[in-house]
Parts: sequence; C-alpha cells; structure tokens
Amino acid sequence: MLIEAIYHRSADSYCYAYDDRTIHIRLRAKKGDLQTVTVLHGDKYDWNNTASEKQMRIMASDELFDYWQAELTPPHFRLRYAFELHSGERKLWYTEQGFTERKPQNPLTFFDYPFIWSSEVLKPPAWVKEAVFYQIFTERFANGDLSNDPEEVRSWDEDNPGPHDYYGGDLQGVLDRIDYIQSLGVNAIYFTPLFEANTNHKYDTTDYYRIDPHFGDVSLLKKLVQAFHERGIRVVLDAVFNHSGKGFAPFRDVLEKGRESAYWDWFLMRDEPIADGAVPPYHCFAFEAHMPKLNTANPEVRRYLLDVAQFWVKECDIDGWRLDVANEVDHDFWREFRKTLKSLKPNFYILGEIWHDAMPWLRGDQFDAVMNYPAAEAVLQFCAQDAIDAETLASQIGRIVASYPQQVNEAAFNIIGSHDTPRVLTVAQDVRKVMQAALLQFILPGAPCIYYGDEIGMTGGADPDCRKPMVWDEARQDAELLDFYRRLIALRKKHPALQKGSFEFVYAQGHQLVVRRSHAGELVYVCFNHEDTEKSISFTVESATSFVTIGGNGTSRMADETTMTVTFPGFGWLVLIGGSASA
Amino acid sequence: MLIEAIYHRSADSYCYAYDDRTIHIRLRAKKGDLQTVTVLHGDKYDWNNTASEKQMRIMASDELFDYWQAELTPPHFRLRYAFELHSGERKLWYTEQGFTERKPQNPLTFFDYPFIWSSEVLKPPAWVKEAVFYQIFTERFANGDLSNDPEEVRSWDEDNPGPHDYYGGDLQGVLDRIDYIQSLGVNAIYFTPLFEANTNHKYDTTDYYRIDPHFGDVSLLKKLVQAFHERGIRVVLDAVFNHSGKGFAPFRDVLEKGRESAYWDWFLMRDEPIADGAVPPYHCFAFEAHMPKLNTANPEVRRYLLDVAQFWVKECDIDGWRLDVANEVDHDFWREFRKTLKSLKPNFYILGEIWHDAMPWLRGDQFDAVMNYPAAEAVLQFCAQDAIDAETLASQIGRIVASYPQQVNEAAFNIIGSHDTPRVLTVAQDVRKVMQAALLQFILPGAPCIYYGDEIGMTGGADPDCRKPMVWDEARQDAELLDFYRRLIALRKKHPALQKGSFEFVYAQGHQLVVRRSHAGELVYVCFNHEDTEKSISFTVESATSFVTIGGNGTSRMADETTMTVTFPGFGWLVLIGGSASA
Repeated sequence: MLIEAIYHRSADSYCYAYDDRTIHIRLRAKKGDLQTVTVLHGDKYDWNNTASEKQMRIMASDELFDYWQAELTPPHFRLRYAFELHSGERKLWYTEQGFTERKPQNPLTFFDYPFIWSSEVLKPPAWVKEAVFYQIFTERFANGDLSNDPEEVRSWDEDNPGPHDYYGGDLQGVLDRIDYIQSLGVNAIYFTPLFEANTNHKYDTTDYYRIDPHFGDVSLLKKLVQAFHERGIRVVLDAVFNHSGKGFAPFRDVLEKGRESAYWDWFLMRDEPIADGAVPPYHCFAFEAHMPKLNTANPEVRRYLLDVAQFWVKECDIDGWRLDVANEVDHDFWREFRKTLKSLKPNFYILGEIWHDAMPWLRGDQFDAVMNYPAAEAVLQFCAQDAIDAETLASQIGRIVASYPQQVNEAAFNIIGSHDTPRVLTVAQDVRKVMQAALLQFILPGAPCIYYGDEIGMTGGADPDCRKPMVWDEARQDAELLDFYRRLIALRKKHPALQKGSFEFVYAQGHQLVVRRSHAGELVYVCFNHEDTEKSISFTVESATSFVTIGGNGTSRMADETTMTVTFPGFGWLVLIGGSASA
Repeated sequence: MLIEAIYHRSADSYCYAYDDRTIHIRLRAKKGDLQTVTVLHGDKYDWNNTASEKQMRIMASDELFDYWQAELTPPHFRLRYAFELHSGERKLWYTEQGFTERKPQNPLTFFDYPFIWSSEVLKPPAWVKEAVFYQIFTERFANGDLSNDPEEVRSWDEDNPGPHDYYGGDLQGVLDRIDYIQSLGVNAIYFTPLFEANTNHKYDTTDYYRIDPHFGDVSLLKKLVQAFHERGIRVVLDAVFNHSGKGFAPFRDVLEKGRESAYWDWFLMRDEPIADGAVPPYHCFAFEAHMPKLNTANPEVRRYLLDVAQFWVKECDIDGWRLDVANEVDHDFWREFRKTLKSLKPNFYILGEIWHDAMPWLRGDQFDAVMNYPAAEAVLQFCAQDAIDAETLASQIGRIVASYPQQVNEAAFNIIGSHDTPRVLTVAQDVRKVMQAALLQFILPGAPCIYYGDEIGMTGGADPDCRKPMVWDEARQDAELLDFYRRLIALRKKHPALQKGSFEFVYAQGHQLVVRRSHAGELVYVCFNHEDTEKSISFTVESATSFVTIGGNGTSRMADETTMTVTFPGFGWLVLIGGSASA
C-alpha cells in the first residue's frame, strides 16, 4: 500500500454536505492500489452505540489516483469517521493522526465533520442542471436598430474584426432573432456585458446603471428578458465588478481631484510611485490602464455594486450573474453578494469566471459554479486537436470532477469556447470533430453553453477574430451542423440522465470512449469513435437490460448477456438508452 | 521521485498571504525524496517579463513527508507559479495540470494566487505571540466573598470534587489573589465562563448579560479587568454560543409555548419525533438535554449573541473571547462575529475550541487561532507518558505546524491540560516530567497557557477531578515547581526568539531533543534530556557563534567549530543563546 499517496482532509472536495442530510466523504489513493475502502463512522458523542461501517466506491480516477467516495446521512447531522484500507494482504486504518496497523479505539483521533448547517450547504439552482446555454456577444450577434449604431460601423459581412471595431449589434437584434434562438432549443442565455462602456466588448463599464446606448436601454432589456421568459429561456448577464472603465464617473473624479476626491478609496491607488513607468499608479485589471481595479473591500463600493447587482434583477428579472475576473475580487464581497442576491431571488445562478482550481469560491458561501475552462481544454485536446488519447481525456475529466463537490460539478458551466478563446471549428479544422466536442460537452456533468455561431460552423482565431458578426445568411451556415446541434440539445433536454445523472467512463482506450450516465432508473451510454475509420468496440453493460439507440450513426448489438458491441463509422457516435429487458 | 506523494493546492496551508505583501507557498513531498525544489513565479499578465525562480526549503517534516516552503512578495499582489522538482537524477515540473518532463511553457496551466486583499489576510493580534496565559476555573480558584456562596458549598480543603459540587470560588477571590497571579509573570488570563448558569462550570448559560451571582457582578468584573490591565495582564473570557442552558429565558419560553413561542426558531427543534426516546426533541450540545443548541443561522439569535459579545467588550474592556464548541457553530456566524469584534477592538483575540484539524476556521475570516489539543497530545505522549520517542514527537509537531499558515502557528494557544483533561502531573506522575512538558509547551510556536494549579503541582484525573480547589497553603504547594514555572515564564518573555522565532528540530533521537528558534538575530537552542540518566548529545550549530546558557541544569561545550556538545543530568534541560563569537 502506498500510504504517501493517500490523502484526506475534512474539508472542501474531500468532505462536504451534499444536501441538508447527506455528507460526502472522499479519499484519494494511488490508482489501482486499494481493493476496498471502508469508512467507519458514528456520532462523536455516542461512538460506542452508533459506530457503523460503509463501503466506499471509486467515484473518479485520474492518471495517478483513484478517488473513493461514500455518502452518509448521520441522524444528528454530525460525523466522526476513519478509514479502513485494504491493499493485497495489507490492512491499515487511517485517522486524522495517520496510519495504524490496529483498529483505532479513540474516536478523538478520528476525522470530524462537526455539524450540517442547512444555511451553509451549497445548493445551486435546480434549473441549471436542465439548462442549455447560448452565449451572445451582443455587438456581433445582430443589428436590429440602425439608429443606435456607433459612428463608424463596419459592414456586417466583413468577417475580420479588429480589436476596436464596431458592427452595430444590439438588443433589438437579439429580440428580432429570438425565434431562431428558441428554435435551437436552448433554455438559457449568457450575455457578455451590456452596460455603458467605451469598447465593443463592454468590459470597461462607465455606467453600471445604463444599458450601453449602442445596445438599447433598460426598457428594451426588460422587454427582451420578458420575451425570453415567455419562451422558457432564462437570462444571465455579465457583472464586471473587478474593475470599472476609466470613464466611470468616480474614477474620473479621482483623476481630476487626486487624494481630495471622495472616491480615492474606491480604487486601489498605489502609495509609492512604481519604478516601471509602464505600470499605472493604480491597480488595474492586468496592466490595462483603462480598467482601474475597484476596491471591493471598501463598504461604499460594496454597497454601490450590490445595489447595481440587485437593480438589474429587480428591474429586468434576470436569472443570474456571470462574474468577470471573479477570483481577483475579495471573497468577502462575494459572500455578501451571494446573500444579497439569493435572498432577492432564491434560484438565482451565480457563476464565476475562474480559469484555475476554484475550490475556495465553491464552499457554499460564494458561487454556485465556475466556467469550466479545464474541462474545455481536455475536450478540445481530445476531440479537436488529437493531442491526447481517450485514457488521458478520462484522467483529466476525472481529476476535475474529483476536485469539486458533486453539486458543483452538476452546476458546472461547460464550454468549448468563448469570446476569449479561438472558435472550436478553427481549433478542430473538421466539422466532424466539432460534433464530437459538442457531444462530449453536452454529456459532461453540468450545463453546456454554446458560443453564438459555433452551431452554424463559424470560424475565428484568438480574440478579436473569434468575435466575428453572426452569419445570418443561411447559404453560409452549415445546415448539417446546425441540425446536429438541435438534435443534441433535444436529446439532452429529453433525458434526465444526461442532465443530472451519475457520470463514469466505462471505456477509454485510444480514440474510443464510452460514458455511462444514469439517473432515477434511466441509463444512458454515450459512445465516441474519434478516429477517421470504422471501428467496433465492446464494453460491459448491465445484464437483463435492453438498449435502444436514441442518437448517433453507429449500430449496437449484445455480444453476450453483458457485453455490448458498438460499431460506428469514422468520427461516429452512438447514444444508447437502457431499460429493463422485460419491459 | 514518488510523484503520488507530492501535494499542493492553491489554498489553505499550501498557499496563503502571510501579510499584506507576502505569499507563502508550500509543497508536500515524500520525506527525503527531493533534493531541491524551486518555485517558478511571475505575474500572470506579464509572464515573460516577470518570470523568476526561488529555492524552497523544508519548513517542517513528519513521519512521511517533508514540507517545502518559499516566501514571495509579488509587486502587483498576484502570483502565478509552478514547481521544479529534483530527486536524484530525475527532474520534473509540477503545475496545476500535473507533472511534465519538460519545462511547462503555458502559464495558464500554472498554479495561481489571484490577489492579496489586505482585508482578508489573517492577522492575529501581535500581543498573543508575547503572551503567557493563565487559565482560571473561577468556581475553584479562590473564594473571596462568602456572602455570595451557593447554598451548599463544600470545604475548600476537600479535594474530591463531584460533578455537581460547589466550593464558592468567585471573582473577588481572583482579585484577592491578583498579586500571586502577577508574581507568576503571566500577562494574560483565560477565564472559563462567568455568566449566570445552573452548573459549577457555567457552560449552560441562563443569562448572557449577567455575571453569575455566585461569582459577582458586572461592576466587579469591570474592576477586576481593570486591575489586570493595570498590571499589563490581558483578559479573555469564554463565549458559549453553540448552546445555551435549559434555563435560558427564550428556551423556557419554547418549552412553555411550543411552536407558538416567538423563540421557536432560536433553537434547532426537531420536526420529526426521534425514535430513540433518549434523544431530546431538539438538537443539543452532545446529547445533553440541559444544553439546547442555538440556531446561530437565525438573524435574531445572531444579533442577540453579537450584542452579547460586544457588550462585555464595551462594558469591561476584555481582550478576547475563547469560543466554546466553536466548530459546531456555523461559519457565517463566526465571520460576522470576527468583523464585529475586530471593528470594535482591532487587537482582539478570537480563539476557537476545536480539537481537530481546524483549517476551515483559520482562513482569515473567522478565528485567530485554536486551542492546540493535537500539540498537547504530542507533548504529553513524549514528556509525560513516554509513549513516543523524540523522532515521533518531532514528526507529530511537524505535521501540526505544516497543516496551518505560519501566523496561525504563531498565535496558537498551547496547553498541556485544561478543565477538560486530566492534569499533567497526574498523567506524568513525576514532577520532572511536568517540567519537561512545560518547557516544551513554552517553546512551541504560539502562546502557552498554564492551567491554574499546575504550576504548584496540583493533581487530578479526568473531569471533575481536574477541577479541585486551588491549593493556597504554601506548605502544600511544590515550591520548586513554582520557581521553575516563574523562571520559564521570565525566560520566554525575555527572549523574542521564544515568542515569535522560526522553529525547527535540530536533534530528535530516542529521548533527546533539541529545538532551534531564531528571530531578528537572536538564536536560541533548547535541549531536552527526557531520560532518567545523565546524557551527552552533539548537534551542529552555526559557526563563528558563541553560546551562553540562559536556563537549565546541563553544561555545554563546542566540540569543534560547528559541533555543540551538551551534557545534562537525568530529565535535564538546557537553553543556550547564541551571539556572534566576536561580540
């Protein structure tokens, strides 16, 4: 037994309340090293009368480790526990004090989860699991009102946007195209920022209370959200609270009056001059002088931004905020943000933009989920870039899933591209690979989000090239891809197992991959052939179960009672649903 | 290289801000496995121009692992980093994405510390490092006012307290004995609860605004705190906010009116009847029906308890709260508690009673420190019970120190016994071992606390036996032990290295132990001979340094330029201070 590989700490992804009654316990061990893991558990104040045991199972694996999990429902909401580990002939116990050859007798040395407080359990809104998002970069989606165009707009057909170009896209354009959006089947929208700013992307807010005049006004947004809601589509806006634009009135006041400004402490002005003249005399987003960093630890700033955050919920009934550069804002601001927004609208979605391990923001007190860039990277490497094999893909996804509580994974915001990355088709250079990437994106735990235009085969390299005007000319749209997306969305929406089911890789070798998801008796297998040639693979399935194809272009047959053989063409895929054979 | 043993996550004890400018990075690796570890670091938004390297060093080790640490001061308060690991001929890089043979080029895959917010850096009050605490269990310390005695009090000389006995100790008694307390040299007091309750220990509060009438009243406490302050002694009280007593008026109201009570939601009443009739129909501390658990998630309860917490600061100017059963109260309550108390009195000390790994309460938003029960256990096992050898002691202390940010260790509340454990002399059965335990307690990172009477050799088994009346008859006090304690306190108070210095074991074999601490040029070695026979040991010290004995009963000599040889009697000890040899 490789004891140095074993890891557990009574916090974060290793020990958390999943709901008001259930605690999830995880333990990391060297991959393949342990045959069984048992959790000894009981009540700390009555150990002898309550001690019990539960077998753990592997919930995910990565390249180096297996992650074992058990779910426990302690009657008094508190848990004392230790682990019994078996590897070959060796048996060890593991407590907070380390490893012992003999069964530990003193529960004081055990691990401890002190009490489940319902108010502290992370409960992302249930609707997120069922959501399929569509991301709209408003300046480039549709121009519905020529009268509010910026002074110099480029022609919609010119597909080489520069960093400072305008095309005239606006909210009226989105409203005009709402039938198209609805026809996709998506049920949630994520808008990049809509508030007054001096750029086309609007990430440098100058007035948090005003819709950018090139986009429309508050009454138009209200009308648009209402129209979406009538179609069962929720709306998430982008909150840029890490920094403002240089034209934000309080910052202008600071520039004008210096230390005399009442807003001096609204920003993080530097006390000492910076040797490097290239660095502005205040903290910024990155080193962007036109994006001064807001001092969200200042109660006045906090009050102001929380009022802004509430205003758009109250005024337009939006359903969530996506938080820009969320990890560079102080935790305490987000805690107050969560309390404020959740008390205003309990099923509000709070989504952070964090590209790295985001555990410190996902402990129940801050965000519901984060944009899943690590998963996007894995999906693209396997499906679009052929940079990794199926086993590595499974390892990478396993690592991500194991790094967060289950409810975080279930509310993850799964992307394969955004306004900040090259488009998937440009990365893949093959629409069949785009389909594989989208399929994988759609069956990962969490909610998928389609970046506008990906569904019709738009191309584009890194920013600003990935922000081309939406192609509305059907002759220039990829109808087959669009049809694929519509079927994919419908498939996911129809099957709860694809929205909220358990998740595991049952086959991951070379270029072939099979994922199993199940929920409340529904059992779905999703099979990928990521190779440009016909292929057959076999994997074990439940006995006494019959399977029906619900999507894809392969064929399946039972080779024996528990062996499924799937045959599919190059870049083929197949989705099977299982039911009792007798049904 | 055993890569499965390597652990890092950008949070908690592995990555934290130590102060407003400094980030500490730690990495865990198999003990002895790595020869060098280098942290590559730079600014995420300007990697190419800022990338740099820093060697890490081992800050602690335990039985299985070395913990490497580096301190970094990023000019823009944000840090991107990765590790370069060397083991024998093998070199690997380690990022958030795992291990690579080649130097990683994409800083997006690196670890990330997004921004140092001064408001979120854990900054325990500076005075705690310099503190020596004395714990007073008021009912048993001194009876200064016979008129407020409970109806039936036992004679002070009867040293066999039962669980429900009273002896008449009170605040006037403490005031009467203040010269004795001052004569010890301690500079901080921790009082177990003083508020009205129905037990001798007062952990079942019936009135949070009233000093227990058997102890005195608010004006007496005010006078007492003032007297302590005049002597440079700070005062910490015990806050029992996890539960109240059954006689607490709101709970009486619930018992009387049931669901009609306005206080129904002040407690955690159980909705469903509990099958086991022995369990009260409400959550309690443990299963104690006379200690109903408070619903600290209820804003009314929160307001009430925060008002209480502030009242005693405003009224009596106390310097800290020790928080009873702190881990079973919700985190969010403690966050509000911290903000409220720190804004009222910035150098206020917030000390949690947590017996287990307490990392989730020590992230800067809740406590300054916790009662260091794990260290107490290790110290007692080595010094008092002879249950572990010096190497194991060093491993156990190493594990504890590595599990927390440095400032948490520096503010730890180090005990070798309390009102909840058998007394150290009863555990050790040998006063020389008590001295060794106290010496070790006094030189660990953090502040020591003496449980009343330990300094004069009082005995006592588990509660209630450890709560005997204080022995004031000097003939029955151990004068030698008392003198030892006075010298120990003076030694610690005189030498900053013992209060806030770095900490490492330079020798830990068998029954002998040497600890090195240094601070701002002051260098101290503390040597223990935990064996009942004369012993000589040698260890390496700084060259060009001369050493002077500042405590203990051994002798020292330099065997060569860098080898110190210490000779001490059975259970001897020696404290050496080093200075430049030329001085």
